[in-house]
Amino acid sequence: MTDTASPPGLLLFAHGARDPRWAEPFEALAARLRSRRPGLNVKLAFLELMAPDLPAAAAAMAAEGCSRIDVLPLFLGAGGHVRKDLPALVQRLQAEHPAVQFRLHPPIGEMPAVIDAMAEAAASLLP
Amino acid sequence: MTDTASPPGLLLFAHGARDPRWAEPFEALAARLRSRRPGLNVKLAFLELMAPDLPAAAAAMAAEGCSRIDVLPLFLGAGGHVRKDLPALVQRLQAEHPAVQFRLHPPIGEMPAVIDAMAEAAASLLP
Repeated sequence: MTDTASPPGLLLFAHGARDPRWAEPFEALAARLRSRRPGLNVKLAFLELMAPDLPAAAAAMAAEGCSRIDVLPLFLGAGGHVRKDLPALVQRLQAEHPAVQFRLHPPIGEMPAVIDAMAEAAASLLP
Repeated sequence: MTDTASPPGLLLFAHGARDPRWAEPFEALAARLRSRRPGLNVKLAFLELMAPDLPAAAAAMAAEGCSRIDVLPLFLGAGGHVRKDLPALVQRLQAEHPAVQFRLHPPIGEMPAVIDAMAEAAASLLP
């Protein structure tokens, strides 16, 4: 199988909010990843208040031929949603799409490079 | 006045959660900023479920001699809390502490350098 037949999938999972502007940095992140990795299938999914939800986004990616989907929580800290709800959700996805290999990652805000960048960005605001 | 008499203050404002581990990346960020900028007064404050709240943290920083406090929301996107509640909260702080100059910044997740770092970190997870 070629990369085109089975593109890797990256599913960015965010909380969701009433205000559509809330999703702007997440859309910017997805756009940046698509331009960096043209072969990658990048989708956003939301826990609540915004569409698509995780099952809908995962089903679309499976239908588009992804045989591996990395799920990356776009959360700064890991509360109940990330620690409990999300592993259960991904387990259900795995059962529904046995041909797809799902990998759930720790939240993006716990990645040391992201913490470093936030520290640098915060320091840049100060006199 | 020397820097020691009036240290700049950086107030990192996060949502808060029931699980104390949720705050770990925020504490890591505060620790990194303290070691980078030994003269800086860095405090975390929370909207709910964790202490201190914003008024308590700001009062402590004012009592510790900060004459300028930069408030940086540790949110990835700006929903109602950041767009509406927080400006009102900071206005009230400004009225209560007229000798302190408060500056409210956009959320850290909207800073381009942070979005870049998240894109890089996300890409690093993929094969």
